[in-house]
Amino acid sequence: MRILVLGGDGFCGWPTSLHLSARGHDVTIIDNFARRETDVELGAESLTPIRLLDERLDAWKGLTGRTIGFRHVDVARDYEGLEGALAELRPEAIVHFAEQRAAPYSMKSPRHKRYTVDNNINATNNLLCAMVEVCPDAHLVHLGTMGVYGYGKARGLMIPEGYIGATLRSGGVEADVEILYPPDPGSIYHMTKTLDQLLFQYYAKNDGLRITDLHQGIVWGTSTPETDLDERLINRFDYDGDYGTVLNRFLMQAAIGHPLTVHGVGGQTRAFIHIRDTVRCVELAATTPPRRGDRVRILNQMTECHKVRDLAAMVSGMTGVPVEHLPNPRKEAAENELVVQNAGLLGLGLTPTRLSDGLLHEVIAVAQRYADRCDPSRIVCTSTWVKPHPAARQAAE
Amino acid sequence: MRILVLGGDGFCGWPTSLHLSARGHDVTIIDNFARRETDVELGAESLTPIRLLDERLDAWKGLTGRTIGFRHVDVARDYEGLEGALAELRPEAIVHFAEQRAAPYSMKSPRHKRYTVDNNINATNNLLCAMVEVCPDAHLVHLGTMGVYGYGKARGLMIPEGYIGATLRSGGVEADVEILYPPDPGSIYHMTKTLDQLLFQYYAKNDGLRITDLHQGIVWGTSTPETDLDERLINRFDYDGDYGTVLNRFLMQAAIGHPLTVHGVGGQTRAFIHIRDTVRCVELAATTPPRRGDRVRILNQMTECHKVRDLAAMVSGMTGVPVEHLPNPRKEAAENELVVQNAGLLGLGLTPTRLSDGLLHEVIAVAQRYADRCDPSRIVCTSTWVKPHPAARQAAE
Repeated sequence: MRILVLGGDGFCGWPTSLHLSARGHDVTIIDNFARRETDVELGAESLTPIRLLDERLDAWKGLTGRTIGFRHVDVARDYEGLEGALAELRPEAIVHFAEQRAAPYSMKSPRHKRYTVDNNINATNNLLCAMVEVCPDAHLVHLGTMGVYGYGKARGLMIPEGYIGATLRSGGVEADVEILYPPDPGSIYHMTKTLDQLLFQYYAKNDGLRITDLHQGIVWGTSTPETDLDERLINRFDYDGDYGTVLNRFLMQAAIGHPLTVHGVGGQTRAFIHIRDTVRCVELAATTPPRRGDRVRILNQMTECHKVRDLAAMVSGMTGVPVEHLPNPRKEAAENELVVQNAGLLGLGLTPTRLSDGLLHEVIAVAQRYADRCDPSRIVCTSTWVKPHPAARQAAE
Repeated sequence: MRILVLGGDGFCGWPTSLHLSARGHDVTIIDNFARRETDVELGAESLTPIRLLDERLDAWKGLTGRTIGFRHVDVARDYEGLEGALAELRPEAIVHFAEQRAAPYSMKSPRHKRYTVDNNINATNNLLCAMVEVCPDAHLVHLGTMGVYGYGKARGLMIPEGYIGATLRSGGVEADVEILYPPDPGSIYHMTKTLDQLLFQYYAKNDGLRITDLHQGIVWGTSTPETDLDERLINRFDYDGDYGTVLNRFLMQAAIGHPLTVHGVGGQTRAFIHIRDTVRCVELAATTPPRRGDRVRILNQMTECHKVRDLAAMVSGMTGVPVEHLPNPRKEAAENELVVQNAGLLGLGLTPTRLSDGLLHEVIAVAQRYADRCDPSRIVCTSTWVKPHPAARQAAE
């Protein structure tokens, strides 16, 4: 299958590109290296020594004989470049990772909020526009987030896969319908994915585009069978307060003996998935497109739910590194429960990688190996969700 | 009250600015003249000879002694200019008309789709960002559209004001909640207003911004008591296939003896409001802000519903001009019913202007007065909603 991977140089995009290539697909990466530029902006590099994309691709070719193509295109700003690449490459599937994907980064300042909205929405809309023009039969596989559902309104409901049965009531009349789960995003970043959902819904309805939206949990781990083949194929490992995902931060902190930093009481229950399951899910989704005219297919790409404090306690118990509670920079419930439907990807053949499968130790080993590259000053999140009111700001001055 | 009107040079923005000034508010217009530039792009001027904004403002000052301020800022692209204007002017209310507002224009080409999404979403997000930074207590009054509700899923439900009671069902559990009415936009333009809704919901929740979203029906008429004071204050009258709203197009067609162009069978039922009610509604909303911490207040800004073919028959009956049915360029139901809740603005004091109030004749009189400025070649809509599939395109070549 001819597959384009937009954002194929990133944390999820790179191992996905390798996995798709290993499975025999004809893969081309499109990327603008925005994530590497953000490393420079934040002064926080990947813990693992990731290679430039050219070296990555050469190594893959040398090791496997397989070619992964590359086009340097800014999907959000270079529409002509994007449309030209689609027309030339005639993809059967397009995997869309080309969005700013960190909630704390999206909350740092007006500039970061605006960049996240501008980049993510224009990237998605440009892609949809270009597909209508040149490849309306291609299958778009988008990486969404479990965060579109929110964690405040569930009231004991299982989080369904995108759509939920509802009885609507107005003016004395009732109607039974199935609707998109009412979104309740907790950051600017998560909000952009709720906007994406409406873009997808519109283009599927008006233009008949075939779209799968994968609402992914928090990714942990860094290695896949393909990235393990050679150090030149190594994947990113973000540990900083902006891009480091919570479990990976704990594992990295454990590796260097830094206290495990829990925001608030750690009662937040979240959905998780290992990176090696991410790459499998994307292939399972890409190769099973919905039919033209179908509504957007939404699948929950996660394998298990845990409370943050339970993860910290587990890693602490394994390693002896203590837990430290910090003020929570996010505006979110201190405690929530979460039950998630994920029958879709299990039905397509996913066999979940569990936290209990020994991979926690494997990740700590990776973190220990590159511990000398860690800058401990980058570990703590410095973004805050709510700006003090001007009256409070004045009083503080 | 200090009020900013973003997009205050446009079809709704200009008479709103005059009305607010006449009511004693301290009004400043922010505009980038995008709508006038679009006239040039489309080669379709306002039927009425609108004056440059400087002349408009001078005339208003001369006639009434009241000053309306002006800042030339592109809200979607000049964040610093916008934030600076807010910091300097310290508005208590901000009326946000600064969006591309024509559905047919938004469907003309990939460039028009992309401009509409990019402009509308960045304008709204920039404004919300800047409010958080410099005037978090100001009240944002946004012009939404009845089109966010869609016309396909109602199933006999009255369209509520934004929120609808719902019983959600998942995993054997039920929850009674009030949710944003599930959106179902019918064009790229209407879709941008559904994205705006999610932006508002997010910023109201995270930052406590006070926001009113006015879901407006199709505006008809052109004159208000203030624009009638002097020809230099005259308002736009769009009659072209992109920007002309349906009833105004019929009235203008009647004035010049052009057949009344109905798309399809004309069974579309839509909500309408006269421009003089628009300006009153905006003042009623602006002066009654929700409290900080409230959810977004949503009001339906419309006064009556009609089927398109009934409007055409009414205008034809008044004038003897025949009705002509054209293929419908839109992807929409041929027939729909529509019942809309609008108790909110009525409760605030709106006395509706009805189609039966003689204003149909007044509008025809305006159109007849400027009939020599009409370019009949611009009357018919040339946008189409759906691009033929490549296979069909090839077959046609």
